[in-house]
Amino acid sequence: MIDVAVFGAGRIGKIHAGNVAREAGARLKYVVDPDAGAAKALAALHGAQVATVAQVFEDRGVGAVLICSSTDTHADLILAAAAAGKQIFCEKPVDLAIGRARACAEAVARAGVTCMIGFQRRFDPTFAALKARLAAGEIGTPEMLVVTSRDPGAPPIPYIRSSGGIFKDMLIHDFDIFRWILEDEAETVHASASCLVDPAIADAGDADSTAVTIRTKRGRLCQINTCRRAAYGYDQRFEVLGSGGMLQAGNHAPTEVVASTAKAVSRDLPEHFFLERYRAAYAREVAHFFAVQAGREKLRTTIDDGLKALELAEAATTSWREGRIVRIG
Amino acid sequence: MIDVAVFGAGRIGKIHAGNVAREAGARLKYVVDPDAGAAKALAALHGAQVATVAQVFEDRGVGAVLICSSTDTHADLILAAAAAGKQIFCEKPVDLAIGRARACAEAVARAGVTCMIGFQRRFDPTFAALKARLAAGEIGTPEMLVVTSRDPGAPPIPYIRSSGGIFKDMLIHDFDIFRWILEDEAETVHASASCLVDPAIADAGDADSTAVTIRTKRGRLCQINTCRRAAYGYDQRFEVLGSGGMLQAGNHAPTEVVASTAKAVSRDLPEHFFLERYRAAYAREVAHFFAVQAGREKLRTTIDDGLKALELAEAATTSWREGRIVRIG
Amino acid sequence: MIDVAVFGAGRIGKIHAGNVAREAGARLKYVVDPDAGAAKALAALHGAQVATVAQVFEDRGVGAVLICSSTDTHADLILAAAAAGKQIFCEKPVDLAIGRARACAEAVARAGVTCMIGFQRRFDPTFAALKARLAAGEIGTPEMLVVTSRDPGAPPIPYIRSSGGIFKDMLIHDFDIFRWILEDEAETVHASASCLVDPAIADAGDADSTAVTIRTKRGRLCQINTCRRAAYGYDQRFEVLGSGGMLQAGNHAPTEVVASTAKAVSRDLPEHFFLERYRAAYAREVAHFFAVQAGREKLRTTIDDGLKALELAEAATTSWREGRIVRIG
Amino acid sequence: MIDVAVFGAGRIGKIHAGNVAREAGARLKYVVDPDAGAAKALAALHGAQVATVAQVFEDRGVGAVLICSSTDTHADLILAAAAAGKQIFCEKPVDLAIGRARACAEAVARAGVTCMIGFQRRFDPTFAALKARLAAGEIGTPEMLVVTSRDPGAPPIPYIRSSGGIFKDMLIHDFDIFRWILEDEAETVHASASCLVDPAIADAGDADSTAVTIRTKRGRLCQINTCRRAAYGYDQRFEVLGSGGMLQAGNHAPTEVVASTAKAVSRDLPEHFFLERYRAAYAREVAHFFAVQAGREKLRTTIDDGLKALELAEAATTSWREGRIVRIG
Repeated sequence: MIDVAVFGAGRIGKIHAGNVAREAGARLKYVVDPDAGAAKALAALHGAQVATVAQVFEDRGVGAVLICSSTDTHADLILAAAAAGKQIFCEKPVDLAIGRARACAEAVARAGVTCMIGFQRRFDPTFAALKARLAAGEIGTPEMLVVTSRDPGAPPIPYIRSSGGIFKDMLIHDFDIFRWILEDEAETVHASASCLVDPAIADAGDADSTAVTIRTKRGRLCQINTCRRAAYGYDQRFEVLGSGGMLQAGNHAPTEVVASTAKAVSRDLPEHFFLERYRAAYAREVAHFFAVQAGREKLRTTIDDGLKALELAEAATTSWREGRIVRIG
Repeated sequence: MIDVAVFGAGRIGKIHAGNVAREAGARLKYVVDPDAGAAKALAALHGAQVATVAQVFEDRGVGAVLICSSTDTHADLILAAAAAGKQIFCEKPVDLAIGRARACAEAVARAGVTCMIGFQRRFDPTFAALKARLAAGEIGTPEMLVVTSRDPGAPPIPYIRSSGGIFKDMLIHDFDIFRWILEDEAETVHASASCLVDPAIADAGDADSTAVTIRTKRGRLCQINTCRRAAYGYDQRFEVLGSGGMLQAGNHAPTEVVASTAKAVSRDLPEHFFLERYRAAYAREVAHFFAVQAGREKLRTTIDDGLKALELAEAATTSWREGRIVRIG
Repeated sequence: MIDVAVFGAGRIGKIHAGNVAREAGARLKYVVDPDAGAAKALAALHGAQVATVAQVFEDRGVGAVLICSSTDTHADLILAAAAAGKQIFCEKPVDLAIGRARACAEAVARAGVTCMIGFQRRFDPTFAALKARLAAGEIGTPEMLVVTSRDPGAPPIPYIRSSGGIFKDMLIHDFDIFRWILEDEAETVHASASCLVDPAIADAGDADSTAVTIRTKRGRLCQINTCRRAAYGYDQRFEVLGSGGMLQAGNHAPTEVVASTAKAVSRDLPEHFFLERYRAAYAREVAHFFAVQAGREKLRTTIDDGLKALELAEAATTSWREGRIVRIG
Repeated sequence: MIDVAVFGAGRIGKIHAGNVAREAGARLKYVVDPDAGAAKALAALHGAQVATVAQVFEDRGVGAVLICSSTDTHADLILAAAAAGKQIFCEKPVDLAIGRARACAEAVARAGVTCMIGFQRRFDPTFAALKARLAAGEIGTPEMLVVTSRDPGAPPIPYIRSSGGIFKDMLIHDFDIFRWILEDEAETVHASASCLVDPAIADAGDADSTAVTIRTKRGRLCQINTCRRAAYGYDQRFEVLGSGGMLQAGNHAPTEVVASTAKAVSRDLPEHFFLERYRAAYAREVAHFFAVQAGREKLRTTIDDGLKALELAEAATTSWREGRIVRIG
């Protein structure tokens, strides 16, 4: 039984806390959040205690921490947790500044602790099944990857201002999918982008629609298209073309009802946003984290994966801002 | 907080016990099973105690019982539970003998307790969504219902021998779907059947493939086709034709992967059997039972629904055995 | 080069005449229709002449006739054509009276001419592909067949009055599908039916919604559900369950556009009615007729197939009217 | 009635000649091909005559020519046809050299004749329906376009050597789709490409897999991914994201059969290659050409469309070869 502290009692903190509570080998001991009410409510729900950051790191009984607080706190918490010898699960990104993220990776390595990054998409049943079938050789050698990643709607402008930009905030997941699926590293990155959804996003110095192309060291090609707004909901698909065929990962829908009326044959919209779409993925991700602690599984999304995705996000940002193709490494 | 006893620690007992354990307003207190090892294991998993039938009914603290034991024990347990004033959830069928099932219904009515029957399909997200859309008038007045209900494989012959026959064992769920969807009662029932899967089933006096037609009092038509074996897995679909269109409820699949190779474009098989397909339905069904106890919801699958489905199963059995159309009521 | 006369310049006569015109080995010589204007227009379209029935049969140069006129003329024309030694293609049904249809079959046999019946569904690309894959053993032995057959809307009441009833007019095609797919003959037929679409249809002595069950001599089961009205268009599907899996034949749609909006993910309605849905089937059917004449193919839908389907339609009508299961042969 | 000459009796010449033969207002008079046997066979099939280029242009009775010969002959034939005042239909591309293509456009303009370019995809029923629904505002303003365009297999190396490269040979159609769907002109073009299918293609100086991004003057984004080999056949899809939703155009399949076996639920592969997939499009395209001549429709794919697509193909080739983003106009 491993005692656990969760930093952050917001949307994603609640999800992870619930999954920790359901985990046989773990016990949710502390919830930490500057918003005392939120911390108290979440702690109460699972019979945990409210604590401060200091209390968590001073408690030698705490074996693991889940960092679900705001992005600007990630690095400090990782560094403190590594220093305290706690096992770490941290939401993406490690930090908006690549140098600081690297410092975290070094601290984690020195401390010899786990630092899993929350790339939950790798744990989505559909995405994971596709990956397993690809690895089993079902379509031969993968050659091209097309990723579609669209949100149902744009976040508030203040969120966008502190997000690090669309490439670090939204595409970082897609860059991780790229590395995970093609098992190759980028040689060149080209990013084009526009502000088509809301001019206030442009005013905030960001874009809301992007088209990225990556060519890998082995010549494989990847195209990513993203948008902050899809009227039909959260759109999370990708397809891999291989020498022997294609594997496509589609959206999920709440039900399998088909309606045929005088107008059309229609099906459900995809699950509306990430909390619905990745519910199973979040559960499996946390289960994986504890399976790693128990020595039953080998860590699958490391802080190095977090760094590599961040580097791609930086390259894409540069490509877009400077209007040029960026060469990696 | 309501204390609960579960009778039966088999496949379905485990499912329900797990769902009780996850229920905020309920506590799993007892597990009862003639197989001491099974009872002990299940009780241990959820921090409950092993008990005898007598202990459960003598404990005034027990508010509800879930009857998941073998069919031949259902009636005795319902009668005892009603006498003890316990709230009852019972797996289908109430009893293979219609007279005894009626006696149970009377006892339940006299005792004034809830007796929910485990027609979990009504709680399947797809089926429930279809029903809600039908009720909202999306396709006008329902006129025809076609139900497809196929198991991945036949159960062992000893099971078949004590099952009451395919109409009571397997189609009872489909008869409930019929009543629930068309909201009408049968006027005539015609059942044709064959033994095409395994001659040992015919030797046991049963059929493995059936084709049933029901005409309702309002002239609506329902066709049900069932088989004990579908090579591709559990097949649970139905479609309703209404004056303004059609609603179809399809199977679920584990993932949304589509593979295109030189041979075909292929998708996952449907979820393999009832434990997978109706996982969400079982959870929602138990949640509904406790919501009824808490006064938040009105009971949706009563012992009368169980009786009506049983009457249809009897009528279908008679139609098949005697080669005639059976008139109801 | 074979000279051809077409009887009937209505909807289906136009289709067949057009297909004859496109046939390399055939020449459309005559069009016959009591409606002189219709005959003239169709003849002009394809460079043919208007003729009377007598002229056609007196012209020794005419090798084949296509009977697309009203049902009550079929038998006379078949008898005359057989007597004149013409090769015959005739729309279903041969005749509403089974005795008269048998007389036609005998005349055809005596004359030694071809008499192909227009069961065009066997030539539908989807249906024909399913049949070929079934014959190739893809799903083992066929055991159950479920046929869905719905029109977009009911025909005018006068048409219904002279149609011979829904079983002879509409289900005759489905009965042929049953025989063609299961390759077995009926042992019992049960038909239930209702008038749910339009009470005027009941006043005309007919039903508009039916549910038929056939059990074959080998114990195979077939269910057919039909309706005169489907708000979403012409619905023509069937599925075969075999010992090794299932084959389903679905509807066609005009395009492969999928629209995702804030409301739903939607696709095209199926092709609206038989002229659209079976366009390819009609072309292949006529090509088959001439390929038979040229000795390249063996006749696939004989007058005996027409008789067998008619017998099933009669049995179903009796089952419905008399409320009993009808035993065949 | 307009007399027509077809240049080229190869694959595409045969298709167009057949469609001319079926056209009510046109008569196929001449077939021209350096391969005398091919010319003779095609002419015989439709009752036309074999002729030389000179004979066609000297015959004042010839109203229109269809240029289906090899790419290197297109420009000369367009210039000669324009000089002779013939109406012109020409397969893509106008010419591999943009300067020469421009000269053709000027000659056509001076002569005042029609010069339709064979961008048949605009006439595909699915693509055309999507375009019409987009124009009707079904998904608001279009913002992103993703085009997938893959051949079942690579052409022979000699063909590739004289093809002008993959961007002019294969993507020229996709560039036309881009312009047609987004109704906007390119501002920047970025093309990445690899040789992953066959190293002989690299030896021939070409690529076989490409990833192109276009940003339009209004900031709309388009991504095109192509490959010379898809194991599952011809893959021709695109999707448009608009402010109010998404429209997707999918592949067609020969039949609507779905097979469910112990392994998977599978459907047909898409139609194998362009002759099958675009059969309907070729017919509609030629019908449109003659409808334009008859004054019933306005020309939809002009020589200017051909030039614009060629310019994009040149820009993409440059982008790929020089490893830079190319700015248009």
